[in-house]
Amino acid sequence: MSSPSASHDRYPWQNEPTWSKSEKAIARTAFDAALNRELREVMQEAKRMANEIKEPADAWDLEHYLTERRREINRKYDYRYSQLTHVFGRLLYEGRVSEEELGGLQEDKLNPIRSLANFLAEDAA
Amino acid sequence: MSSPSASHDRYPWQNEPTWSKSEKAIARTAFDAALNRELREVMQEAKRMANEIKEPADAWDLEHYLTERRREINRKYDYRYSQLTHVFGRLLYEGRVSEEELGGLQEDKLNPIRSLANFLAEDAA
Repeated sequence: MSSPSASHDRYPWQNEPTWSKSEKAIARTAFDAALNRELREVMQEAKRMANEIKEPADAWDLEHYLTERRREINRKYDYRYSQLTHVFGRLLYEGRVSEEELGGLQEDKLNPIRSLANFLAEDAA
Repeated sequence: MSSPSASHDRYPWQNEPTWSKSEKAIARTAFDAALNRELREVMQEAKRMANEIKEPADAWDLEHYLTERRREINRKYDYRYSQLTHVFGRLLYEGRVSEEELGGLQEDKLNPIRSLANFLAEDAA
């Protein structure tokens, strides 16, 4: 029986590109910027919804909105290098990161990122 | 073995007073008024908290507040006649219904209502 863990420490999996130090810095900056923009969006929408509250159901709608957004954001912003091309692929599709912000990443990251973004765009069309 | 259900349909339990038609009307009015006041309180607090949102954690605090309040209100406002003296006892203790609003109820309701309100007041002291 082969032991797959024996090679774990030395070789990355075939599908997991290695992130260089400068790529990690680029990724962290783009990731944090997108997360901050999305959180700001939630804060503004919560204020808008709260201002419009006229009956109890409106307050529970606001609660529901916040619960859903919190869960979605927790799921979406997963900063593990093994997940990062998926994360950026989705964010690129959603227009939450730009190609410019990802500039400096190598093609072994940009290709799967663009590929997922295109897939999601076609899937939604 | 005795069958307690045999007498269910005809006789109320010893501890469950019977509510007359006029008492039901008084109870419904007092119940709805307290519920509406409490819901209004939640709506106003939600607006206040939303206006104060400055960072993401504030939005999740608002979500948490709404979730807790919704659950508490659902638990508290239980309009079953078997529960109603407990419900009013708590509302009286919390200052959410007044003795005046309960005026017209018979002593077999007012006694357990006042008794629970006093118990809760002493428990909290």
